[in-house]
Amino acid sequence: MSLDNHWFSECYAPGGSAFSLKIVKKLHQVQSPFQKIEVYETETFGNLMVIDGATMVSTRENFFYHEMMSHPILYTHPAPKRVLIIGGGDCGTLREVLRHPEVETVQQVDIDEEVTKAALKYFPELCESNNDPRAELLFDDGIKWLAEAEKGSYDVIIVDGTDPVGPGEGLFNEAFYNSCLRALTNEGILGQQTETPLYHMKLLNEVHGAMRSSGFKRIQTHTFPQPIYPSGWWAATMAFKGSNELPIRTDDIANKPFECEYYNLEIHRAALALPEFMRRQLVI
Amino acid sequence: MSLDNHWFSECYAPGGSAFSLKIVKKLHQVQSPFQKIEVYETETFGNLMVIDGATMVSTRENFFYHEMMSHPILYTHPAPKRVLIIGGGDCGTLREVLRHPEVETVQQVDIDEEVTKAALKYFPELCESNNDPRAELLFDDGIKWLAEAEKGSYDVIIVDGTDPVGPGEGLFNEAFYNSCLRALTNEGILGQQTETPLYHMKLLNEVHGAMRSSGFKRIQTHTFPQPIYPSGWWAATMAFKGSNELPIRTDDIANKPFECEYYNLEIHRAALALPEFMRRQLVI
Repeated sequence: MSLDNHWFSECYAPGGSAFSLKIVKKLHQVQSPFQKIEVYETETFGNLMVIDGATMVSTRENFFYHEMMSHPILYTHPAPKRVLIIGGGDCGTLREVLRHPEVETVQQVDIDEEVTKAALKYFPELCESNNDPRAELLFDDGIKWLAEAEKGSYDVIIVDGTDPVGPGEGLFNEAFYNSCLRALTNEGILGQQTETPLYHMKLLNEVHGAMRSSGFKRIQTHTFPQPIYPSGWWAATMAFKGSNELPIRTDDIANKPFECEYYNLEIHRAALALPEFMRRQLVI
Repeated sequence: MSLDNHWFSECYAPGGSAFSLKIVKKLHQVQSPFQKIEVYETETFGNLMVIDGATMVSTRENFFYHEMMSHPILYTHPAPKRVLIIGGGDCGTLREVLRHPEVETVQQVDIDEEVTKAALKYFPELCESNNDPRAELLFDDGIKWLAEAEKGSYDVIIVDGTDPVGPGEGLFNEAFYNSCLRALTNEGILGQQTETPLYHMKLLNEVHGAMRSSGFKRIQTHTFPQPIYPSGWWAATMAFKGSNELPIRTDDIANKPFECEYYNLEIHRAALALPEFMRRQLVI
């Protein structure tokens, strides 16, 4: 059947595929200096934020992404006190990071305040920790921010940006990773969303290569379901500044003071298993 | 954007979502006594088979499904010699099963020969083992077949059927599982595709409950990416007739005489990790 105008469709041209959600109505549209932001009310996924035509976040299933962008990295770092989030304007990753009692400060640097304004109105649950005294929301250029950051000032940097086109483009290259490495403490970890392995093995290899060239000692990709993004399957990549293998903090996970929808210890370990085609194609 | 008629879309109404592939042309259409079968040439996913409007199999990504429907169950059974496949007419699961040298016979019972005819023409790679002397392709009613099967005649039964509507409906209830249990040897395992956890926790619970009521001793669900099916994330469920915990045959996996695209030992273990919401909602 064909889809009428009661559906929002993201056509992912290089993949030749599209994902669509049935919509009730458009709730919001704004053209910021950086991108076009829309919010729809959908029939079954709650609200849906779309940036430049690409699905960003839905009420129903954002837990996959936000949990897997934050908990694996925070439960791998031995003592994540100072955290930086680049992008993340919908504040869902921020909320998950702030669930960790060890975290003392989180700076979130998103270039586009309009994303956070839309989130505050249409995804209030993702913004419920925005007023946590440990959180600082900054609207600035993340690339510049990191280039100017004090050396060794963050334990964890999470790059929760858009696809590597438009404002997100400069987040996927060696110059940016050099800045991240410099800004991290000696045991620091960088985590980044790195698209879907089904369509983007080339990008994943470029990211691994650039991270390694920057001086990161160990690079590790994990995967998880992501229903509204192209292929429905997504990857994030962690890069470790130190050479020591950091064990997963299993006891802390067993006693974590918050509930998740997707993440737990078994899922953490499972997400790190690389499918055979990734093993063959990743130049590690 | 809206999708024009150069796209095939499966609208999954209960989920309020749709998945679409850009098509070059329709290659085939037949109305069998059971269902409407179509095959499209797509721009980027190779060929696509559609049954009654639902995507079934594509050239590009069927490896996720077929590998995860066969290797976890066959590498858990200690000596899978006699295998029965119910459904599976595209022959992709059959091909994977026949890669196991321990397997002595595979009977495949699909109700609809038109599916296999279409697969032979448009998915020849999935049918490359159809002439293996260990394989027997039967076109018959799988429910009736199992009701009449000799007691203890199969080590492994794989139910590779369509959704629980139409011809696939009778494959998801206690009467059917009773037949499976009877037809299995004492250490026998039943494996079945069980839809997506994102939309179908109710069905998953009903399946677990019916399998347990039939007398299966242990039930275990695993998940994997499945890009062309609703939500992009899928589950299969294994039910064990015997009470002994069957260890994964790790040495045999390490020495397996064939290559996979997705499956390996780490993926096998990882697939068994249950997300937190499934743990909470599955009445195990």
